[in-house]
Amino acid sequence: MNYAEMSRAELKAEQEQCLHEYYNFKARGLKLDMSRGKPSEGQIKEVLGMLDVMNSKTAYKTEEGINVLNYGCPDGLPECKQFFGDILGVPAEKVFVGGNSSLSLMFDYIMLCYAKGASETSKPWIMQGDVKFLCPSPGYDRHFAICEYLGIKMIPVRMTETGPDMDQVEALVRDPLVKGMFCVPKYSNPTGITYSDETVKRLAKMETADDFRIIWDNAYCIHDLFGREDKLLEMLGECETAGNPNRAVEFCSTSKISFSGSGIAALAANAENLARIKNYYARMTIGYDKANQFRHVLYFRDLKGIKDHMAILSDIISPRFEVVLGALESQLSGLGIAKWSSPNGGYFISLDVMPGCATRVYELCKEGGVKLTNVGATFPYGKDPEDSNIRIAPTFPSLEELSDATELLVISVKLAALEKLLGEGKTQI
Amino acid sequence: MNYAEMSRAELKAEQEQCLHEYYNFKARGLKLDMSRGKPSEGQIKEVLGMLDVMNSKTAYKTEEGINVLNYGCPDGLPECKQFFGDILGVPAEKVFVGGNSSLSLMFDYIMLCYAKGASETSKPWIMQGDVKFLCPSPGYDRHFAICEYLGIKMIPVRMTETGPDMDQVEALVRDPLVKGMFCVPKYSNPTGITYSDETVKRLAKMETADDFRIIWDNAYCIHDLFGREDKLLEMLGECETAGNPNRAVEFCSTSKISFSGSGIAALAANAENLARIKNYYARMTIGYDKANQFRHVLYFRDLKGIKDHMAILSDIISPRFEVVLGALESQLSGLGIAKWSSPNGGYFISLDVMPGCATRVYELCKEGGVKLTNVGATFPYGKDPEDSNIRIAPTFPSLEELSDATELLVISVKLAALEKLLGEGKTQI
Repeated sequence: MNYAEMSRAELKAEQEQCLHEYYNFKARGLKLDMSRGKPSEGQIKEVLGMLDVMNSKTAYKTEEGINVLNYGCPDGLPECKQFFGDILGVPAEKVFVGGNSSLSLMFDYIMLCYAKGASETSKPWIMQGDVKFLCPSPGYDRHFAICEYLGIKMIPVRMTETGPDMDQVEALVRDPLVKGMFCVPKYSNPTGITYSDETVKRLAKMETADDFRIIWDNAYCIHDLFGREDKLLEMLGECETAGNPNRAVEFCSTSKISFSGSGIAALAANAENLARIKNYYARMTIGYDKANQFRHVLYFRDLKGIKDHMAILSDIISPRFEVVLGALESQLSGLGIAKWSSPNGGYFISLDVMPGCATRVYELCKEGGVKLTNVGATFPYGKDPEDSNIRIAPTFPSLEELSDATELLVISVKLAALEKLLGEGKTQI
Repeated sequence: MNYAEMSRAELKAEQEQCLHEYYNFKARGLKLDMSRGKPSEGQIKEVLGMLDVMNSKTAYKTEEGINVLNYGCPDGLPECKQFFGDILGVPAEKVFVGGNSSLSLMFDYIMLCYAKGASETSKPWIMQGDVKFLCPSPGYDRHFAICEYLGIKMIPVRMTETGPDMDQVEALVRDPLVKGMFCVPKYSNPTGITYSDETVKRLAKMETADDFRIIWDNAYCIHDLFGREDKLLEMLGECETAGNPNRAVEFCSTSKISFSGSGIAALAANAENLARIKNYYARMTIGYDKANQFRHVLYFRDLKGIKDHMAILSDIISPRFEVVLGALESQLSGLGIAKWSSPNGGYFISLDVMPGCATRVYELCKEGGVKLTNVGATFPYGKDPEDSNIRIAPTFPSLEELSDATELLVISVKLAALEKLLGEGKTQI
């Protein structure tokens, strides 16, 4: 029954029941964690074979004769550029392969624009006054942390089912001090939605400052679940078609495909941006770790190989999502106190509780033995204006741990809502 | 016989003899390269066993239980921090372990100071006008490239047998716009000298701007040759003792120890700098490749292990240095037209030919079939004011190739000097 339709007495009875369940749970003394977007032990075990494809007995030269253990190939092994090109649906010549972190590639790119300018003809962002970034929210806290560190003012943009609110975006980018925008266009972190074709086309086409850049963080480009697959338009091509070839730079990595600390990251960009990026890296490094690039290519071989691997990972991850989604559905559906995403891929479930209740849900979970992602982390400056969003990361815990953790989460969502509806302040726990 | 003491007729006869040798060499049609500071194939073969220490059957957790294949340890595996601490002679807590490139760590550090400031209380360098760096020269071209890229004005400082000319340095750093200085303090690139204790102490003690920083690139910290070993004072401790704990940040890597593209790099810094650096990297990455850190620690074990490995590499590299040094000694000694370094370690031999002759030696070698490092590369802005210095990189070619290449180099040095002394312009080759 919808809480809004309950009488005060019914709400009190519901609260008593929930408190009873809460204390029972707390008495079990569990220590659970749903905060970390980390692969589980099982995922890692499925890719251990990658450690075997290079050893002291195997060749360490590519078919073209490149020694992967010596200097060379500053933009990546040719076969690895092809590999990422196939994953992203772009030609290999648009690809630059980096180290183990796409976040580093994004940081470096923003730093390039910030300290040197986004193009040959534009001034460094740092020299243009109070520059701003659009931040579709909820979004990824590590994106926001880069802006905050550099003093780039963040403007939150509402996320919809089809991507960021494009009317809002188009209005905001008319300000020439708006220099960029973060996008996780597929299985968005944390809402799980994929940008619609219309959203992509409007992003590519809209009027912006010349040195406005979209950080197209395609982190979950092939991270499908449940055998489903969202389709995303290829952004670099759309930007070219729209006459704005330098609008976007795309990023991805194998952090949630091979090893989280020891994967490889890549970026893709159209010609002018790519030349500027290569020029930057030419000053920074003699080249990234080609041995690890070689391992990945030898192990996954090609797009089909890595998609087959993603299907194995889906078999591990999908049931975890199902445990959480099933409990939310069976326990919270129809109560009118929460909404949640049901993504076809990615790493997160986004839960919106009653406005003003997220912090309380976090506290109740923490007291009861379950750690959630910090409330507000998914918003610029760590502040959720509605105090409503909770990011759930189901990949790392076991199915049993997830089941337990979600049980407490559900109770806590109810308790926080009941406190709000009853207006009697926090219950002493 | 010293060329300066020869009659014109004797010089002409010598020129005829050298030209005869030059044409004979050129007729062999060789294509040799002494330009690249790269490990040879033989060096790489000695460390292939490192590829075996992690495989799908071995543990991928440290003794403390850290999963090296998942996120975590943003400042490096504890055992790897200890490993680099032992190499650099500093406590492990001063160490930050990075990716595969110490150049990247240096670039990042300069970028931090440039865009955010060297300390909490100082302005970003970019906001302070025309900031400058001291560049002991000849030096490392990739250091100079960073400054040039960022528009940091480079001031060359003369290198002596004991390090940079400290009278010059002490005078220059009184300018508050001098913000930093590059140093390769041991087996300096390219002169091969090691800074004396007095030089180190004067660097630590001198009066500078508060946000002046020394980039202490200890690239060749354990790269001894011929069973000899230069001793270098530990810089971070000297800076602390002198009351300037934030003066220097130290860098090193295994690029010329394990694999050039797939080694690991580290930096060491005193507390305040290190906190600032960690804070920067916390925005940039979730952590560097711990699997590769683990490989290095498992394979080398400890300081003794890596020093034993360096002795093996010395057996490969020392004879190469001997071939070059032997030929220079037997062919150029006493002619009064060249001086060269005779280092106890490192990767380079520095050859000074008669002023105004280096470019001509480069041309003659190129025409004859030997590629040298670009003349001027060892000086800021690629300009050797004396046109005198040639950097010789003996590690990559085979002994036979080196012997051949040095033969042509010696002839070319003579020919260039003879052209200068005869004053008849370039001989048509």
